[in-house]
Amino acid sequence: MEYYSSHINKLIEQLSHLPGIGAKSAQRLAFHILNMPAEQVAQLTAAIKGAKENVRYCKTCFTLTDQEECPICRNDKRDHTTIMVVENTRDLAAYEKTGKFEGVYHVLHGAISPMLGIGPDDIRLKELMQRLQGDVKEVIIATNSSLEGETTAMYISKLVKPCGIKVSRIASGVPVGGDLEYIDEVTLLRALEGRVEL
Amino acid sequence: MEYYSSHINKLIEQLSHLPGIGAKSAQRLAFHILNMPAEQVAQLTAAIKGAKENVRYCKTCFTLTDQEECPICRNDKRDHTTIMVVENTRDLAAYEKTGKFEGVYHVLHGAISPMLGIGPDDIRLKELMQRLQGDVKEVIIATNSSLEGETTAMYISKLVKPCGIKVSRIASGVPVGGDLEYIDEVTLLRALEGRVEL
Repeated sequence: MEYYSSHINKLIEQLSHLPGIGAKSAQRLAFHILNMPAEQVAQLTAAIKGAKENVRYCKTCFTLTDQEECPICRNDKRDHTTIMVVENTRDLAAYEKTGKFEGVYHVLHGAISPMLGIGPDDIRLKELMQRLQGDVKEVIIATNSSLEGETTAMYISKLVKPCGIKVSRIASGVPVGGDLEYIDEVTLLRALEGRVEL
Repeated sequence: MEYYSSHINKLIEQLSHLPGIGAKSAQRLAFHILNMPAEQVAQLTAAIKGAKENVRYCKTCFTLTDQEECPICRNDKRDHTTIMVVENTRDLAAYEKTGKFEGVYHVLHGAISPMLGIGPDDIRLKELMQRLQGDVKEVIIATNSSLEGETTAMYISKLVKPCGIKVSRIASGVPVGGDLEYIDEVTLLRALEGRVEL
């Protein structure tokens, strides 16, 4: 694309490596950035650098944080005997938004996937098992409802049960507000199997 | 969002200012950046800074370039007597991709829009008129086929015609491969008005 300058091409190329950003979006973003006030561009690059340099894993639950231990793990008001296991920090954030979970988390950073060659040693499973040495009453497995998430849930449940700790799995079913007509059969079956008496 | 670190929140906020990037995408991008190798992150921020610091307007056609004059304006093989007027650099790039236009460009950086308070003085119109002092045979107006683009085209045509220079407008009509059934009425009428004898 010799009609753009090499600097623009480089920027477009870098942006198009980001997830969900194709060639057209990268172009649009690049020109937006070029039209932004210099000060705002500096803020953007500083935010990227600042996050990359300062964010690390919480030493306890392995969520992304900028301190040695994250605010949730440091919070005495949380119930540290109930651990919810999630695949990543975004899933943790999704449950935190509900504001109803009082326990703490454990972030695996992935799920077991034989297809992608991700085994139990590639996620933060060992670290979870170490935490169970302490005073833990329940492990709630909140991995995704995908093949990988289910495999991981099964695997963890088999590891944790022999320790005499209660293991539970978040419910699968019809999403609230969901229209049955548009919901896949597997979910419908799950909702049927998991039915509760009224 | 106290469950993220302040550095992550800052990054998410900065990313969500970009066009077409909502809260969810900004979150996804932020975590992607945090998981990128440090070297790749450095390349991304360097590309942003490099583009912002080195890209300026071509002194002749006002496209974005990193030299005083862009490669197209410096190219002797192009026909400098034919100027295609476009709204922005992306539109220039779109025509360059066809590889069939031999003339040069003039980038307005916007279009006249009374609604948005953008008048003739807010786009690079004066600079176009200055170029017409030289040896120019034809001005092809390739502004968008929107209300603003049409207004700008009309305005430019009224300014340029008295200079004794040929003024033309790119054709409106049914896009190649377009199915008549799905095309709006205005376009269909334009296509009818602009019919060519076979």
